[in-house]
Amino acid sequence: MHIEQSAISQWLSDAAHAARAASDVLARMPGAQRDAGLRAAAAQLRAHCAEIVAANAQDVTAFDAAGGSSAFRDRLLLTPDRVEAMAVGLEEIADQPDPLARVLAEWTRPNGLVMRRVAQPLGVIGMIYESRPNVGADAAGICLKSGNAVILRGGSDSRHSARAIHAAFAAGLRDAGIPEAMVQIPPTTDRAYVAAMLAASGLIDLIIPRGGRTLVERVQAEARVPVLAHAEGLCHTYIHAAADAEMARTILANAKMRRTGICGSTETLLIDAAIAPILLPMLIEDLAQLGCAFRADEAARAIVPGLAAAAPEDFDTEWLAAILSVAVVDGLEAALAHIARHGSSHTEAIVTEDAHAATAFLNRSTSAVTMWNASTQFCDGGEFGFGAEIGIATGRVHARGPVGAEQLTTYRYLVIGTGQVRP
Amino acid sequence: MHIEQSAISQWLSDAAHAARAASDVLARMPGAQRDAGLRAAAAQLRAHCAEIVAANAQDVTAFDAAGGSSAFRDRLLLTPDRVEAMAVGLEEIADQPDPLARVLAEWTRPNGLVMRRVAQPLGVIGMIYESRPNVGADAAGICLKSGNAVILRGGSDSRHSARAIHAAFAAGLRDAGIPEAMVQIPPTTDRAYVAAMLAASGLIDLIIPRGGRTLVERVQAEARVPVLAHAEGLCHTYIHAAADAEMARTILANAKMRRTGICGSTETLLIDAAIAPILLPMLIEDLAQLGCAFRADEAARAIVPGLAAAAPEDFDTEWLAAILSVAVVDGLEAALAHIARHGSSHTEAIVTEDAHAATAFLNRSTSAVTMWNASTQFCDGGEFGFGAEIGIATGRVHARGPVGAEQLTTYRYLVIGTGQVRP
Repeated sequence: MHIEQSAISQWLSDAAHAARAASDVLARMPGAQRDAGLRAAAAQLRAHCAEIVAANAQDVTAFDAAGGSSAFRDRLLLTPDRVEAMAVGLEEIADQPDPLARVLAEWTRPNGLVMRRVAQPLGVIGMIYESRPNVGADAAGICLKSGNAVILRGGSDSRHSARAIHAAFAAGLRDAGIPEAMVQIPPTTDRAYVAAMLAASGLIDLIIPRGGRTLVERVQAEARVPVLAHAEGLCHTYIHAAADAEMARTILANAKMRRTGICGSTETLLIDAAIAPILLPMLIEDLAQLGCAFRADEAARAIVPGLAAAAPEDFDTEWLAAILSVAVVDGLEAALAHIARHGSSHTEAIVTEDAHAATAFLNRSTSAVTMWNASTQFCDGGEFGFGAEIGIATGRVHARGPVGAEQLTTYRYLVIGTGQVRP
Repeated sequence: MHIEQSAISQWLSDAAHAARAASDVLARMPGAQRDAGLRAAAAQLRAHCAEIVAANAQDVTAFDAAGGSSAFRDRLLLTPDRVEAMAVGLEEIADQPDPLARVLAEWTRPNGLVMRRVAQPLGVIGMIYESRPNVGADAAGICLKSGNAVILRGGSDSRHSARAIHAAFAAGLRDAGIPEAMVQIPPTTDRAYVAAMLAASGLIDLIIPRGGRTLVERVQAEARVPVLAHAEGLCHTYIHAAADAEMARTILANAKMRRTGICGSTETLLIDAAIAPILLPMLIEDLAQLGCAFRADEAARAIVPGLAAAAPEDFDTEWLAAILSVAVVDGLEAALAHIARHGSSHTEAIVTEDAHAATAFLNRSTSAVTMWNASTQFCDGGEFGFGAEIGIATGRVHARGPVGAEQLTTYRYLVIGTGQVRP
């Protein structure tokens, strides 16, 4: 179906203006009312569970008919348990402190002016995501918590699911007396709506793309609106010479294999040459038993014969699968240099009992998250205590690491005088 | 002179990589050393004052030969006093607290993981500015303080001045043992360097345009790199019905006329209908005596006959001159509605003795800065206590209001464990 470009622009302009008005209302509303909206939306998701699962079945049937892949199908699928998990997620967001009830700084100038920096919603968020339908509910919930309105553009694969989730969420908003324009979805999944959102400078304050590399790169290349990109997670676990061997085995197995498809999973093992002859064979055996394959450099292959040789580009590859790149390094400097060259500024971990080495690693790494003696899979909004996340930011501007409700706020200044004028 | 595109790309790539390496060094350097660099740069500006003024004379001579405007000429002109002011500005930045020595948050999760959010430089800043040569020294100083490297692209009108200032600043960096690559300027003012900077995704972390509307809009339209825009300042002073008349007169005269060419100057007076018949004639007389002209709505012209009539677009015009748009409004809601429709989210002020009205105005305004009983001309990094500013941000993302060294930082997370793995 062809839709007039002007009709799409008009829809977006109307939607964004209604969204901004809704955000202004949300910003002045007590936090308790926004939390009541989250709980009401959770209740409506539960009440509409059968409709949501039925709508999802339409999407899954169409997907199967088109012969899609099984990994993708699993992301698309909604079950009653998964709907319940979405509802629980909204309730967990409601349990968090109000990100808008924050005075970030306050000071008084010599002339008596009181300066106060206070939290404020960003305004109108444009969320562009792919197959997982739960992202729509999570994003709407985080935006509601933070006083933002959101325009949700999900993938065409999940369009029936997205409409059913949106209908339930909107019913919850109505129950709590919150403007329904807080969350809106385009009337169709025509790609022209994505283009219009990316061009909506002045209407949309921030675009958040969540999906594969192709989606994120397209958004970054085309957007005329600020983008908070959830890009690649090419995470490293560095086993330092002074690592505890048992801890290293436990952490690496978890960091690589707990779930291989998440962005916080470890893609590359760096291991000190001093400890590799003893420890690397154990690490490889542990992971091999869990079904992991390897792409190893020459030094690693000299220690563990039979490992597949790494091609140079393997160290720049986010596997998102049961494959581990392996490199032997000559100490901390070499590990940091490898990460600087190949990393994506997402999450890195060092395993060591040497506090000096750990401190040096923590200080020198510039990634969004750097860990000491912990699994990189902890890079997650829930694990950070944020209740939920809308993505992991790997850029430098605005927010880094897991993005929860607090990270979707900005600030403004209040200046309180008694008649001061500037000399 | 035609310069090969590939040579420009190569220069920028080399410059940005050297800049990133310099920023990494700065980030790990004690704050005292960065402050020593600022003081050394100030000393070198003083020592090179004669050369800087002589270089500036070349720019001014060329400008005069081309028949430029006097306002522009004044912005371009450097005198020994203005060079001294640049040096003092750097010393004031050095006196500020270290924006990198901040733990922004720290908490412990139930599993024992310690989460710490710490300040970090943004990395490589691209500063694109027009005629005022002092912007180069201010920007370099703020970037040095915050551990950022900067590529400075000034206007061709000020190219000799920019080189002389850069040479002095670089001498200061050498004196303090700081990598000179911290501040770089392109070898020529060919516009292709601007285009290359705007396209330098992955090389430059943030572009800051500072100049007229045309420059800022061009940068926002073309940049593939995040932009922190210093856009228009269409600031309002709202005289509420319960204003103290003398305070209103003092504040408005200062807000409009102290300096008319700065972004924090008031462009529009909003005055309550209840008080306008008494107060508006006095306000108009005060300002007229200071040389101000007016563009007034019908209600204002009914009270003060002889005022020029405002065209509808006048309320959307940033005059940056001794001209004031005047509108009579029916109370706080009408004032807020006018600001929402015509404002640029920069700075608004209310003058009132009614604390309830003031609180409502402060809570309801969404602009970067909202003031009560103070002159809008206080919207300035120095007046906020930041020591200096690189601009005033009116967007929603990353930073709002005056942008000082602290606002040019981002954060990263340190996660300290004892072997935790994710269940």
